[in-house]
Amino acid sequence: MEIEIATIGGYEEVGRQMTAVRAGNDVVIFDMGLNLSKVLIHDNVETERMHSLDLIDMGAIPDDRIMSELEGDVQAIVPTHGHLDHIGAISKLAHRYNAPVVATPFTIELVKQQIEGEQKFGVENDLVKMSAGETMTIGDEGVELEFVNVTHSIIDAINPVLHTPEGAIVYGLDKRMDHTPVVGDPIDMKRFREIGREGEGVLCYIEDCTNANKKGRTPSENVAREHLRDVLYSMEDYDGGIVATTFSSHISRVTSLVEFAKDIGRQPVLLGRSMEKYSGTAERLDFVDFPDDLGMFGHRKSVDRTFKRIMNEGKENFLPVVTGHQGEPRAMLTRMARGETPYELDDGDKVVFSARVIPEPTNEGQRYQAERLLGMQGARIYDEIHVSGHLNQEGHYTMLDALEPQNIIPAHQDLKGLSGYVNLCQGEGYKLGRDLHVSSNGNLIQLVD
Amino acid sequence: MEIEIATIGGYEEVGRQMTAVRAGNDVVIFDMGLNLSKVLIHDNVETERMHSLDLIDMGAIPDDRIMSELEGDVQAIVPTHGHLDHIGAISKLAHRYNAPVVATPFTIELVKQQIEGEQKFGVENDLVKMSAGETMTIGDEGVELEFVNVTHSIIDAINPVLHTPEGAIVYGLDKRMDHTPVVGDPIDMKRFREIGREGEGVLCYIEDCTNANKKGRTPSENVAREHLRDVLYSMEDYDGGIVATTFSSHISRVTSLVEFAKDIGRQPVLLGRSMEKYSGTAERLDFVDFPDDLGMFGHRKSVDRTFKRIMNEGKENFLPVVTGHQGEPRAMLTRMARGETPYELDDGDKVVFSARVIPEPTNEGQRYQAERLLGMQGARIYDEIHVSGHLNQEGHYTMLDALEPQNIIPAHQDLKGLSGYVNLCQGEGYKLGRDLHVSSNGNLIQLVD
Amino acid sequence: MEIEIATIGGYEEVGRQMTAVRAGNDVVIFDMGLNLSKVLIHDNVETERMHSLDLIDMGAIPDDRIMSELEGDVQAIVPTHGHLDHIGAISKLAHRYNAPVVATPFTIELVKQQIEGEQKFGVENDLVKMSAGETMTIGDEGVELEFVNVTHSIIDAINPVLHTPEGAIVYGLDKRMDHTPVVGDPIDMKRFREIGREGEGVLCYIEDCTNANKKGRTPSENVAREHLRDVLYSMEDYDGGIVATTFSSHISRVTSLVEFAKDIGRQPVLLGRSMEKYSGTAERLDFVDFPDDLGMFGHRKSVDRTFKRIMNEGKENFLPVVTGHQGEPRAMLTRMARGETPYELDDGDKVVFSARVIPEPTNEGQRYQAERLLGMQGARIYDEIHVSGHLNQEGHYTMLDALEPQNIIPAHQDLKGLSGYVNLCQGEGYKLGRDLHVSSNGNLIQLVD
Amino acid sequence: MEIEIATIGGYEEVGRQMTAVRAGNDVVIFDMGLNLSKVLIHDNVETERMHSLDLIDMGAIPDDRIMSELEGDVQAIVPTHGHLDHIGAISKLAHRYNAPVVATPFTIELVKQQIEGEQKFGVENDLVKMSAGETMTIGDEGVELEFVNVTHSIIDAINPVLHTPEGAIVYGLDKRMDHTPVVGDPIDMKRFREIGREGEGVLCYIEDCTNANKKGRTPSENVAREHLRDVLYSMEDYDGGIVATTFSSHISRVTSLVEFAKDIGRQPVLLGRSMEKYSGTAERLDFVDFPDDLGMFGHRKSVDRTFKRIMNEGKENFLPVVTGHQGEPRAMLTRMARGETPYELDDGDKVVFSARVIPEPTNEGQRYQAERLLGMQGARIYDEIHVSGHLNQEGHYTMLDALEPQNIIPAHQDLKGLSGYVNLCQGEGYKLGRDLHVSSNGNLIQLVD
Repeated sequence: MEIEIATIGGYEEVGRQMTAVRAGNDVVIFDMGLNLSKVLIHDNVETERMHSLDLIDMGAIPDDRIMSELEGDVQAIVPTHGHLDHIGAISKLAHRYNAPVVATPFTIELVKQQIEGEQKFGVENDLVKMSAGETMTIGDEGVELEFVNVTHSIIDAINPVLHTPEGAIVYGLDKRMDHTPVVGDPIDMKRFREIGREGEGVLCYIEDCTNANKKGRTPSENVAREHLRDVLYSMEDYDGGIVATTFSSHISRVTSLVEFAKDIGRQPVLLGRSMEKYSGTAERLDFVDFPDDLGMFGHRKSVDRTFKRIMNEGKENFLPVVTGHQGEPRAMLTRMARGETPYELDDGDKVVFSARVIPEPTNEGQRYQAERLLGMQGARIYDEIHVSGHLNQEGHYTMLDALEPQNIIPAHQDLKGLSGYVNLCQGEGYKLGRDLHVSSNGNLIQLVD
Repeated sequence: MEIEIATIGGYEEVGRQMTAVRAGNDVVIFDMGLNLSKVLIHDNVETERMHSLDLIDMGAIPDDRIMSELEGDVQAIVPTHGHLDHIGAISKLAHRYNAPVVATPFTIELVKQQIEGEQKFGVENDLVKMSAGETMTIGDEGVELEFVNVTHSIIDAINPVLHTPEGAIVYGLDKRMDHTPVVGDPIDMKRFREIGREGEGVLCYIEDCTNANKKGRTPSENVAREHLRDVLYSMEDYDGGIVATTFSSHISRVTSLVEFAKDIGRQPVLLGRSMEKYSGTAERLDFVDFPDDLGMFGHRKSVDRTFKRIMNEGKENFLPVVTGHQGEPRAMLTRMARGETPYELDDGDKVVFSARVIPEPTNEGQRYQAERLLGMQGARIYDEIHVSGHLNQEGHYTMLDALEPQNIIPAHQDLKGLSGYVNLCQGEGYKLGRDLHVSSNGNLIQLVD
Repeated sequence: MEIEIATIGGYEEVGRQMTAVRAGNDVVIFDMGLNLSKVLIHDNVETERMHSLDLIDMGAIPDDRIMSELEGDVQAIVPTHGHLDHIGAISKLAHRYNAPVVATPFTIELVKQQIEGEQKFGVENDLVKMSAGETMTIGDEGVELEFVNVTHSIIDAINPVLHTPEGAIVYGLDKRMDHTPVVGDPIDMKRFREIGREGEGVLCYIEDCTNANKKGRTPSENVAREHLRDVLYSMEDYDGGIVATTFSSHISRVTSLVEFAKDIGRQPVLLGRSMEKYSGTAERLDFVDFPDDLGMFGHRKSVDRTFKRIMNEGKENFLPVVTGHQGEPRAMLTRMARGETPYELDDGDKVVFSARVIPEPTNEGQRYQAERLLGMQGARIYDEIHVSGHLNQEGHYTMLDALEPQNIIPAHQDLKGLSGYVNLCQGEGYKLGRDLHVSSNGNLIQLVD
Repeated sequence: MEIEIATIGGYEEVGRQMTAVRAGNDVVIFDMGLNLSKVLIHDNVETERMHSLDLIDMGAIPDDRIMSELEGDVQAIVPTHGHLDHIGAISKLAHRYNAPVVATPFTIELVKQQIEGEQKFGVENDLVKMSAGETMTIGDEGVELEFVNVTHSIIDAINPVLHTPEGAIVYGLDKRMDHTPVVGDPIDMKRFREIGREGEGVLCYIEDCTNANKKGRTPSENVAREHLRDVLYSMEDYDGGIVATTFSSHISRVTSLVEFAKDIGRQPVLLGRSMEKYSGTAERLDFVDFPDDLGMFGHRKSVDRTFKRIMNEGKENFLPVVTGHQGEPRAMLTRMARGETPYELDDGDKVVFSARVIPEPTNEGQRYQAERLLGMQGARIYDEIHVSGHLNQEGHYTMLDALEPQNIIPAHQDLKGLSGYVNLCQGEGYKLGRDLHVSSNGNLIQLVD
């Protein structure tokens, strides 16, 4: 059976992921993501109203014109998890394909919300839920799609595996190897090892190279949790304001924040549009069991009303968890820093960034400015209470050991970013151009012909 | 009562700490340390055989000639904990003073061993043990010396407090604010808050500025422990060699390594001269309760015999904990990296650095070289599994809040290193030259005249 | 005679410089500057309309309330050169003092323009021109003010020296030691050495510590000029657009750009409000002799008209020198990057940044964004073609050797920034708190009483 | 005609360069270099006595076993210039090939000296001199070898061009684009542009990617010269010791040092084994015209004798130019720093590093230590007076514009290091795997079959 892989997006940058695998006549697409930074550099751009082609020209969504060179029918569009760089282009591109979107329940829910927000295109592809551990038949040539449970900085993430007569194609984006992930199940390494050893083994492994230049092992979410616990418990005796911020989609982190707030005698409350969106969705789908009295407010008016209530009832009784961990100009924490909300910061109040600064100068500038403005109001800053959601080098090493793939395709980075992974693979005997394929956007790799 | 403080050593650098406080006619000396880097830059220098004056000229030990200007009698020499930069000059300088060395039991034991190793001077000062929480009368003018329990990267560390009629002098070197320190009691913040409010309050606080330019809160040892647990548990299925290294004097870290080794089915064994020294001492003094079968070997012959036994019985059954976390040329791990021990590294063997690289170019070069040599033998590196033993800025902020000192003296850094602490103090209303005293070595500060 | 120095502004930061020296009954103020970054962090702030007290609260201008503690009459306000951090608060503070502003001709002209732009206060102090090498009597107790020629990144800079019966006070802000400064005379080291040896010598030296942590010697402007020549000559054969940007007030750099533009067959043209202001002023005062046909345009309309003409007559015939070297959001180059001007960039067009990026995250973010936008239009970037205007450590060393001051006050940096200078002085035998005075804003230092 | 390229060494690292080009039946080898860092990491290794295979195993010299897969006869071994990473393996590998070494006169002389020093192998290949601008026929199928003059940090460097019926193969290692190189002719860009446009154009360009991640244009040697002039002239009045160090093989820099020494009234003298070797060779071959009285001494005894003479006649009359710019443990400057030579440093003496620190931790550690030891003796340090010998991104851009190659092979870096060049090529329309070939050591690239 012919096996071909189209590396469509995210092979020269982080963001706008898209990869297609053809096995015989059947094609499966993995991810359709958005590169938000390509949008934000322009003033006054509203993606919701833009046409795909303009977004492709801007480098914001994958250029899927290469799909016409793949001789087969798209059978499924499979986003691996709910982050924008993996689902953000579905509302712009999916309608071109006569195929369902297949994903885990949490991811499907986020895809649905995104499609509802779209104002330019009507996307009517079926949305099909499949959980980790389950399998689906693709086409009629003996190809199967399996979801293996993985751990990432968002819940319900999986790695899809396409079982073909020629061996398995494992699409490894995005994951950390976490055995104690706080919410959800540990990564299913047992299944990966089986896949590496059963049948024809692994024909090809496509790897998440986000942290390919970082040494060691990415710590478990449990380590971030203990770090966060240490920070919040150390504030137990403080009788002023404490504010926390983290990635809205990071449900396990939000869960820890909510729990530790209770532990130190404060009422947690989630504030900001995307805080409400992700946590609300996770709760509705029963991924988490938040306390009954946990408030979540997204609209500015209800947020400000909540802030007023907090000021009236005493800041020392609350722990607002807000958006704005990167100093985004319009996020809640930045508004607080500029004194634009009813919440007043006093000398000694604590602001907890349970996130790292994304290392890009524009971003670093905004974050720095937010911290300066907070500091000018007397706030004390606690930052970098976080662990990455992506494998470091020793995770990559362990995955190679588990899967023993015949071919490898590094993804999710530019050449510089993935260089550490190429070095690692070369150390394990792979060779560039032979079985180690450094690709670029819009490229076709023929594995079996 | 006249109160004067002599900032003798460690006020322009890290290392060779020494401070004297005169209260009326009585003088207490805090710390007498060694700056090892000033020795190591020269080839073939043996401190054990050197004269004090030469070591003073090299900048290796404090220049205590300023002591002659202090009109009073030295009543006690008080090292705060057992690190070399706090006790390493006792064998060279203490004999000049007719006063006992007063310290906690673990520290006294290390001082004793150091004096025994000295080959130039005979030090015969009394060695007096006093535990955290205890108090001793100094002279006959109503001055008391108290030990407050603190948490640091070595056990049995205290902050000495000199209670004078003019208020308390709190000598704050070295500590982290740790409420879950793995071994020993949490930092006694309750007592610090009392001292800040009782009697005349705190006349002067001398602060450990090692991390004065670092934001946030230093995590608890418990966070390092959970990080380490995550790393070692992730290797549970590996059936080859695993080697770990950490600071020999870091008893709580060694304890965690020993415990997790057992958890993953391996026999821990401590190797290297200083590994044996510190862990052996801690065990003899009942600070830790290691497993009965824990081997500790210091002499090269017994270490190599142990390595041979490990190779015979199977590397997969052992976890050697060795010296060499900074790539020191003659340490055990560096010898292993150069293939000079019977322990043979294979592809995929794991080396765990539970330490950070001390950021100094000579050191970074050695550590890099050790890692390269380990890598050339196939070893996989896990590093930076560590937390600092020193307060970050938010710890400093909390200490100021607890003590409300009338005067502050930053210590344990050069001017650049302590600048962040000066900024913090200025933000809290202190003023350079008025109540915030940036000092230098060999300086006298008159607080009450 | 009593000698006292008030370190009013710029002793805890870079910006808003202000220092007062009292000699007997006479007071001279050196510099009255603005810290622009403290203004820009707030949205929608217009300094021209603001009250001094609000600007003091923001940390934007010096807090001169300490002046009331100086018992003497202000005889002169002496800005050393025309940069905003040295003259920018004159329009807000000078009217409080019954004293003339005394400065070199170019500086006086810039002060005059600044006062004219002020909309809140009427500043009516006399503006007195005095050139480098000249001297003026201050009060009637035998005090003289001398201007010594120095070299900096703006023309007509001096170091004022106050000759008192107790020795000279040398105010050393801001300078580089340049023997080949392209425009103007070399630094007058001969005079500094004389001052160091005549009469009572130098009682006090106040030093520009901007680069106190940088090794070696700051290169001459001539080195930047040769670097710039190399860059522009290398483009001689390019037949598309070339655009350059630099500090508008950097007349010698602008002169080199104008000259090299001619050399490679292009018509230079200066564009942007401050480009027109500084270069126009320098030309009117005969500091430079620009070609007769050199266009300078400040208003947006005339700039855009010029861009249209350039597009019509062929980009390959022009070299626009524009504002925007730091990616400032409203500067000309940023407008070009956003496609908001008639000048169209094509693939391969060259943009020359004859400036370094000011190392502050907000700024780095803006500059990065400008470069990205330029790059998206195909522009090629040449940056860091620049030398600093401030002494590095070896310049400081040479100044100490020339002046042999009895007292030293480091200025123009925060504690971290000036730490390298303190180390250097300590190495030369000075001692903190004795003759080396690390000060803070609003502090008084009594030198002779 | 079949055209094939074997990327043998230096495609995964910097050092041990080797590339072979087959055109029909004829093969030409470009460079045979040594990676010295792979040797130095081991203690006590003497390359002169080692076998090729051991050196290959260490990664020190190219693994040329792939040559057996190239079906053709080696007609020439062509080192591009005399640096060790380009000629250092000739003495270990050249004897395996029945072909002459063809190089420019200076390079040939260095090859000859290297062969003479070899103690394991007898290398008897013919050594053929060919100058820049000349051409030689290779085999009998119409292939020509041309040397195009380029500019690098060593004199007499060329880029070899193999003219085949299928187009030219341009081997672009190592160069900077210098129009004012101080010694020798400017880079021959006119010829490169002709080659890009004549006949079949350029079939393949192999590029020096050392600085592929650096923006802008590498400055001319003339810029370093003016920088150096500025530094040395600024010391004209100093009446103590001045010492300079630079790369021994950097003849133009040594020439500038010699000239400026004279200008400031000092007698230059070249000290250290490799100082004598390279400068002596350059003088004998008439590349430079040093003053008649310029001393060059290599053996330790004669160096120490010279130092004694300098001390006797007065340090203020000399400028020793010595080895040791990287703090190499056994180099002359390091010996001076350790006080192991008769030259005594005094407070204020100047040490000029006309070199940058090679950014590798081991090296940075050694250099740091050398500077610390020099500083402990009172020396003042001037460093980073240097420009790179390699193209930055805008040089790469200009080369692409000149040559318009059909295929590109990045070389002389690992993947991370060359990533900036790949980005640049992709921006110019090249595509990975199609006409942009990222290779690895031991790989074959078939260009025409």
